[in-house]
Amino acid sequence: MIKTLNDIQARKVIQSARVARLGCIANGGPYITPINYYFEDSCVYSHSLAGLKIAALRANPRACVQVDQVETDLRWRSVLAFGNFEEIVKPSERKEILSKLFKRFPMLTPVESSLAGDGCSPEVIVFRIRIDRITGVSEG
Amino acid sequence: MIKTLNDIQARKVIQSARVARLGCIANGGPYITPINYYFEDSCVYSHSLAGLKIAALRANPRACVQVDQVETDLRWRSVLAFGNFEEIVKPSERKEILSKLFKRFPMLTPVESSLAGDGCSPEVIVFRIRIDRITGVSEG
Repeated sequence: MIKTLNDIQARKVIQSARVARLGCIANGGPYITPINYYFEDSCVYSHSLAGLKIAALRANPRACVQVDQVETDLRWRSVLAFGNFEEIVKPSERKEILSKLFKRFPMLTPVESSLAGDGCSPEVIVFRIRIDRITGVSEG
Repeated sequence: MIKTLNDIQARKVIQSARVARLGCIANGGPYITPINYYFEDSCVYSHSLAGLKIAALRANPRACVQVDQVETDLRWRSVLAFGNFEEIVKPSERKEILSKLFKRFPMLTPVESSLAGDGCSPEVIVFRIRIDRITGVSEG
C-alpha cells in the first residue's frame, strides 16, 4: 500500500539524502539533473557550473527537487519538493554556502574545491531552491 | 573531469537501471516521479495508476527520463533521454508490456500483479516514452 508522508517525514527524507534530482523547464520541455545539495531552512542549496540548467532556471525559476530512498521495489520513500530558483550573488553568502557544500561533499572535484576558498569566483553558480510545497509517498 | 557519453554508452545506462525519474510539466511547472521501467526499441515502457503525472502527460506529452548510476560523489554516470508520452490502449499490446514489466519486477504490488493477467483493466495506465534524443555525462 502506498501511503502519504507527513511534512516531518518528508523533510527527513530530503535532509538525509546526498543526491537529489533537480527538475526545471528547458526549451519548453522538462529537464532533470542530479545534484549534490544540503537542505536548510526550507531551502535546497547547491552549486553548478554555467550551462543549460542554469540558463533555464534563470529564464523560468520554477523548479522541483525529487529525492528518494529505494531499498527494494516494495520498500521505498519518494519526496517531491517545489520551489523557486534563487541565485546567490553576495560573496559572503556564496562563501558560506560553498563551505557547507564542500564540508558535506569533500570529494568534489579539485577545480571546485580550489574555488571554495574564494566565494567570488564567477565560474561557480551558487543557488538555492526556496521550497514552498513538499509532497511525499512511501511503500513498505 | 566530466566526459560526454556516446550513444551506445548512454543507452547501456538506461538499459541496465531499474529505477528512472520521469519528468513532465504539471500545472505549468516541472514534475518528477520515480518509475520502474524497461527500455526497448528506443522506448521507455512503464505503467501507472491514474493521477497527476498521467493527467499532465496527457495534456502535454513532452517528457524526459533521467537515469543515473552513482557509485561515489566522484564516480557516476547520468543519462537524460527526451521523448513523447504515448498511451498504450490496444489490449494485446498492454498485456505484452505488462507481462514484460512484471517479469522484470516480480515484486510489484499484488493488486498490480493480479491485473497483469488482464491487459484490459483500465485502472492501470500503460505507456511508453518514445525517445528522440539521449544525452549522457560521466565522471571517474
